Amino acid sequence: MTPEQKIQRFISKRRFAFIGSVDKEGFPNVKVMLFPRKTENSTVFYFSTNTSSRRVEQFRKNPKACLYFCSLFFFKGVMLRGKMDVLQEQSIKDELWQRGDTKYYPKGVTDPDYCVLRFTADERSPRTYRI
Amino acid sequence: MTPEQKIQRFISKRRFAFIGSVDKEGFPNVKVMLFPRKTENSTVFYFSTNTSSRRVEQFRKNPKACLYFCSLFFFKGVMLRGKMDVLQEQSIKDELWQRGDTKYYPKGVTDPDYCVLRFTADERSPRTYRI
Repeated sequence: MTPEQKIQRFISKRRFAFIGSVDKEGFPNVKVMLFPRKTENSTVFYFSTNTSSRRVEQFRKNPKACLYFCSLFFFKGVMLRGKMDVLQEQSIKDELWQRGDTKYYPKGVTDPDYCVLRFTADERSPRTYRI
Repeated sequence: MTPEQKIQRFISKRRFAFIGSVDKEGFPNVKVMLFPRKTENSTVFYFSTNTSSRRVEQFRKNPKACLYFCSLFFFKGVMLRGKMDVLQEQSIKDELWQRGDTKYYPKGVTDPDYCVLRFTADERSPRTYRI
């Protein structure tokens, strides 16, 4: 298995993702999210979130981001650097919508407080990993 | 119990800490560490690490940091913002040293590749929590 395949396999087994952002005072921020609802080749990752959330505000001002996937049991991890886009197109909102999401977005799939975060890994960035 | 006491209790029960830093290109970085070896009032936290590590290099250039403590089971977390100092004083290195650390620092407690990271929460920063 190539290192790239090992990284993809490691990521695909995770249940959570830690999202890193930089706030307006220049401090790093970290938050755990459920594993992304859609992924493309361990390079693009989609999360659903509240438009009014702190992270959306931060990424609109500064799209620099990282995703960190780890196994606490094995104490191993993979970090990807990249940019985070805030998407409000209805098509991607429809695609990611899941039963029960009205708990977070009471107005349903067209709720303006429902949006999508799309992380795109910078292919030129070294991936930091210990797996 | 006050919110402050709830935060302290939540942090004291954790086994891991996620450390956020900002690299020289301005990207957030995240890494998991074992729970700090020494803490003071959920405000100051001490970790041992390798002087040659990427995080030490980052914090020497930019001390802005965050610590994130979370329960994946309950999906709850506390984030503290603050600064990270890299300490090389022998007294604190002696204090944090643990049996078996020669695995990481072959030259022992005076190994120049052994150092201490001290995180000090910024008391003026709002603590972000959902516990």
